[in-house]
This record gives sequence, structure tokens and C-alpha cells, in this order.
Amino acid sequence: MLASPLARAAVADNRSMSRAAPAAVGNPISYEQSGVHYELIDPLKVQAQRAAAATASQLGAHGFHEVQASRGESAYVVDVGPFYIATIVECLGSKALVADEMAALTGASYYDGIAQDTIAMAVNDLITVGATPLVVQAYWAAGGSQWFADATRAGRLVEGWRKACEACGVAWGGGETPALAGIVENGRIDLAASCMGLINPKPRLSLGERLAPGDAIVLLHSSGIHANGLSLARKLVERLPQGYATPVAPGLGYGDALLAPTVLYAPITEALWREGIVPRYCANITGHGWRKLLRHPAAFSYRIARLPEVPAVLRFIQQHAGLDDRQAYSTFNMGAGFALFVAADEAARTVQIAQGLGVDALLAGAVHEGPKQLTIEPLSLRFDAADLQLR
Amino acid sequence: MLASPLARAAVADNRSMSRAAPAAVGNPISYEQSGVHYELIDPLKVQAQRAAAATASQLGAHGFHEVQASRGESAYVVDVGPFYIATIVECLGSKALVADEMAALTGASYYDGIAQDTIAMAVNDLITVGATPLVVQAYWAAGGSQWFADATRAGRLVEGWRKACEACGVAWGGGETPALAGIVENGRIDLAASCMGLINPKPRLSLGERLAPGDAIVLLHSSGIHANGLSLARKLVERLPQGYATPVAPGLGYGDALLAPTVLYAPITEALWREGIVPRYCANITGHGWRKLLRHPAAFSYRIARLPEVPAVLRFIQQHAGLDDRQAYSTFNMGAGFALFVAADEAARTVQIAQGLGVDALLAGAVHEGPKQLTIEPLSLRFDAADLQLR
Repeated sequence: MLASPLARAAVADNRSMSRAAPAAVGNPISYEQSGVHYELIDPLKVQAQRAAAATASQLGAHGFHEVQASRGESAYVVDVGPFYIATIVECLGSKALVADEMAALTGASYYDGIAQDTIAMAVNDLITVGATPLVVQAYWAAGGSQWFADATRAGRLVEGWRKACEACGVAWGGGETPALAGIVENGRIDLAASCMGLINPKPRLSLGERLAPGDAIVLLHSSGIHANGLSLARKLVERLPQGYATPVAPGLGYGDALLAPTVLYAPITEALWREGIVPRYCANITGHGWRKLLRHPAAFSYRIARLPEVPAVLRFIQQHAGLDDRQAYSTFNMGAGFALFVAADEAARTVQIAQGLGVDALLAGAVHEGPKQLTIEPLSLRFDAADLQLR
Repeated sequence: MLASPLARAAVADNRSMSRAAPAAVGNPISYEQSGVHYELIDPLKVQAQRAAAATASQLGAHGFHEVQASRGESAYVVDVGPFYIATIVECLGSKALVADEMAALTGASYYDGIAQDTIAMAVNDLITVGATPLVVQAYWAAGGSQWFADATRAGRLVEGWRKACEACGVAWGGGETPALAGIVENGRIDLAASCMGLINPKPRLSLGERLAPGDAIVLLHSSGIHANGLSLARKLVERLPQGYATPVAPGLGYGDALLAPTVLYAPITEALWREGIVPRYCANITGHGWRKLLRHPAAFSYRIARLPEVPAVLRFIQQHAGLDDRQAYSTFNMGAGFALFVAADEAARTVQIAQGLGVDALLAGAVHEGPKQLTIEPLSLRFDAADLQLR
């Protein structure tokens, strides 16, 4: 997700997905079919980004200034003197609907995982700029007071939120829990999180100035779909004979697999700092899938030589939605939830530190001189600058 | 609104409103009738507040700590050494529904004002702790991409947002604009804002430690209903023969009057600081109406001797919803949008500074020794500690 206005709106501009995959099972499902129309949002996005940029001068009256390079990145950064402050607000998206549908089928509550997903959306973006997340605020907008009457579900949301805060070393500052009948649908909840963090000391800032040919690309593994691509995943369930109960792996149903909570990557970026490693750039792989590896504004060629294992649920979606590899890697994380661009001689240690914290990681490729493009060599895929238009 | 979880949930615990007013026009309308049931939210609120408080220790690992007195106040405050950082996320509530209903009647767009309302919800809370607001993030969650296809409405939202940021001296950092079909209702938008600010220098912190008997209560005037009590206001429209077109004053219809944008009070708190005035406490008068004057945790008696003029729309609602004064002042701002508790010898200058910025203000009363209670002398009303349970 982006700090820029309409960030999530651009999450999966999958016009290229309308091409049928060679091995399609049934007709392929595009994002347009799942109800997301990005072309309607883009003009507003541009207008909002311009209007937002125009307000930067306001900081001057307070003796501060924005870090201009953070516009278009995943969090907005302000220089307040002794350190930088990064802020962000992020929405969970539609994953809570899967939890609701599964709860109707199984009677269980999945909102502890949903809480973690929501915090991950904010925290995993905030850390890309080098920030240590400090405070999270909760935004839980329910369709009516009745949502909160289910004590088990509400309790899971609270406990999951607390645990995810503790896993990220952040204080839960408070938040808002409006009952918004007439705006949020009855029985539903709109979940979001805002996060504030410090880049302290200032050399921790990782907006990409130091990124250079020869740098290594380390991919941190995902736990599954995380919270991006859920509209398509929910559309797909309609054509599965067993629905959410359809096995994606022995003993693992589609619904349960979708609900695996998003990995929280903040412990890894904090551990890297303690070990003296400052990433030269970071990309949270959310909407746009692997195209996010093209996020850095400069022209570099990124070559991926090794792939992480694809989680069973994503392999399943690719197959059953009839997506070719290009479509799948354009949309989903395909096993890579976060990319760390580090100096080549720090790559092995970076992998080791992540693994030491229980997150599998892979030295997957490197940055090269050349035109702006991403080459996924094992799949013979290439994406260029036109495939990712975030700014 | 509160920084504590489920803050908005407690916005109008109007159980006392179920008593009929003596001069009721028709049957009085209670908050329960307008669909808000606070008793369903309270247990979660307590659970969330406890869980949030338990996470404060996380800040220690980073060498920081929370300002504990900010828990239960309107913004959460962290001590990061050279200054304090305050953060908040706030929801607009249901006022956008009035804009939508009016747009259907008149064809006009009201989203510039709605943008200001949303930012006011966050900024007017943030400044209560003494913070200078620095960065606002936008949270615009639409019921579908189609919402953004109305270029006039979307453009008004963007422009109103920018102007309100500039009026408050904050940078618009970015935000989120998800299309949440299935969660947010089709054609609707869930609007919220997060805000980060600094309390700098630290003596600007105004959590109430210095509040003392003899201090003056200065009330800053409101522009109308602001963004609290809209559920009741919308319920009322059903019984008005001319609906939103019903005049509340010569030439002013009910709908237009409701949509007067919330006053932004940040320019006043900033001007006070420049003039050497540090409020001893502040209360943003939102949900709970004037009961918010009882917000300070200590036991003081607050005596109000003079009342601001009641905006026509609030006088109209009081009359047509059949609310007695106690009910009206328990629910609505009744002309007072923000309370500044200042040293007695600074009261006149405080009024003058606000008026110089175009916001009418009134030296309304004083803080006295005595049990925790609020006396509104001109109306012979008294509220005590039991009437406001925020913590």
C-alpha cells in the first residue's frame, strides 16, 4: 500500500489479467469481474496526490519539512530535527468478509487473525521507509452496535490486536469504534489501522538513495494470500463445488488457508538494525504482486534467479482462476511477502536473521544496471516500468 | 472523541434521554430510537481499553514511554525525548448521509464541507492535549469504485480536504481510498482522518495537571451541529413535513443548516501559544455535549454563568425532537464547540484572540472547589460525575 492518496485503489490494476491463461480451468476471473474498477479511481488519485503535495509547505511554519522522496512511497516522512517521523493509515480490505463467511459455516471466530492482518497492513508498510513503529490506533467501524454484541468475536478482535501490537513492539494508543448504520453494511465491519513511527537515528531512512547495481534482493516468505487479492479469491469460491471447504492441501481447506494471518515483518527490520544492517530499499509486496519490486523510482533492472515456494492457497487460486504466471505474479505475493534490498555482502546474514525469527527467507536475485525492468528468470517473465504506475 | 478504544462508541450514552421532555413536540426521539445502542459496545470498550493499556510497556524497548495521563484523553501522547508526539484516528460519523440526502434533493455537492468536518474531528481532538497538528492522513473507504466516478463530488472532497489542511497548518501526507463493496454500502463512503502532532516545547502539554479553582472557562462558538448528534438529527427529518427544506431560520433550510462545516479550532490554540497562553485544560465538545466539560479526571465544580447563542439548527432540533434543556445540553454542543480552561487573568485575552481569528468566544464561567459537577446556572441544570463515564 502507498502513503499517497488512493493508494489502495491502485492495488491491483490488473487490466492485463483479462487475457486468458493457457491452462485455464474454466474462464479466467479478472479483477473487473470481481467488482474492482480502477479506471474510475485513477483521475481522483492524481488530483488527490497533487492537492496533498501542495500542502507540504505547511510544515515550514512549524520549522519542519517533509522528506519529499517519501511521497509515493509506502509511508509519509517528516523531518522534525532530531529524527524523522513516519505516518500511515491502512485498510484491511475485504478479508473480513472471508472471516464472516467462514464463521457462518463453522461457527468459529477468526477475528484474532483478522486483527493481525489489519495491523500488518499498516506496520509492514511503515517499516519500508526505515521506521520503527511506535503507536498504532485502531479504526473499527461497524455496521451497527449489534456487531459488538458477539462477545467472542469482539474479544478475539481485541486480543488479536493486542498480540499483534506486542509482536511489533508498538503501543496501542486507542482508536475509534463507530457504529455506522447506513454507511457500513449491517453485520459487517470496516477495519483499518493508523501507525506512527520514528526513523531514529536518521541514517536508518531507507527511501532508496543508496540502492545500486550489485545489491542483493532478499525475499521474506509470506504465509499465504495475506490481505491482497481477496476480491478475486472470494469470487473464485463461487465456482468451487465444496466452496470454502475445498481442500487446497491435505487437511487444509480453502477458507482456512485464506485466513492465515499476514506475517508481521517489523521484528525482522528491527533485528537487522540491531545487527548493523540498513536495507537500501524495501518493498512490501501487497497489491500489484511482484510488480512492487519495480517500486524504486530510479531505472534499474531487477533479476530474480530463485523463487520462494508458492503457498498452497496461491497455487490453488492460480490454477482454479485460470491465471497464467504473469497474471498470478502481477496480482498475488506468490510466496514473497516483503523484499529487502541489501548490500551483497549482507545478504546471507539478512536471510539468517529472518530465519532466526521464524520467517523463511531467500537470496532471490540482484539489482543490475539497465532499463527499469523485473525479470523472473525461472518463469521467463519480464515486467517493465509501464506495468507499475504508482506515482 | 476519545483516544481510548471505542471512544466514539461512547459518544452519546443518552440513557437519560428516554425521559420525555415537558415541552415535547410529538414524542421525544431518543438515541436508541435512532439506532445507536451503547450498552452493546461498553463491555468491548472496557476490554479494549485494558488491552491497549497493557501494550504501553512496548515503548520501553525503544527508550520511550507513554504519557499515562493521556489514556482516556482525546489523543494519545508519547514522550520521545525532545518533545511529545500525539496521535489520533477519528471518524466523521454519519454526517455524510445528510450530504448524500441533500445532494439527491438539490443536485449540489456538499463534500467540501464534509471534508472539513472529517479533518475537524481529528484535529480538534488532537489539539486538546496541547499538540500542534503536523500531518493528516485520509481514510476514504467507498462502497465501490463507482463512488469516485462522480468527478464533481470527488473533486469537492479533495479540495475541501486540502483547504482544511491548510487552515490547520498541516501537511496532507497521503491516505487510503479502498473500494469496499460488501462492507461499505453501495453509494456510500466511510470517512476518517488520522492526525499526528507534536507537543513542542514540552510545557505545552495540557493534560490538566495545572487546572485549579479560579481558572476561567472560555467557550469557543460552534457553527451548528458540527458532526455529533447526526443520527438523531436524521431521524428527526422523517417527521418534518418539508423534510430537509424545512426552514430553521429565515432563508436557512434544515439540511443546509446541518451541513455547516465544523469549526477548525487549531488556528486558535496555535495563536494562544504564540501569545504566551497555555491552556490548563481543553475539552472538545462533541459527543456527550456539555457533559464533556466534566472530562478532567479530578474533582472540581464547574459553574457556567453565561451561555453562547444557540445555533438555529440546534434550537430547532431541541424543539422538534422534544428535548428538554438537560437532554439537549447532554447531547449537542448547543453553541459551544470547544472549551478552553485558562488562568483567570488570561481569559479576556483568550476571548480576544479567538475573536481576532473570526471565531466568537465567551468567558462563560469558572472552575471552583467542590464535588465533581457542572452547573449551568442560566438553565438551572446540574450534571455530576455519573453523567460522564469516559474512562
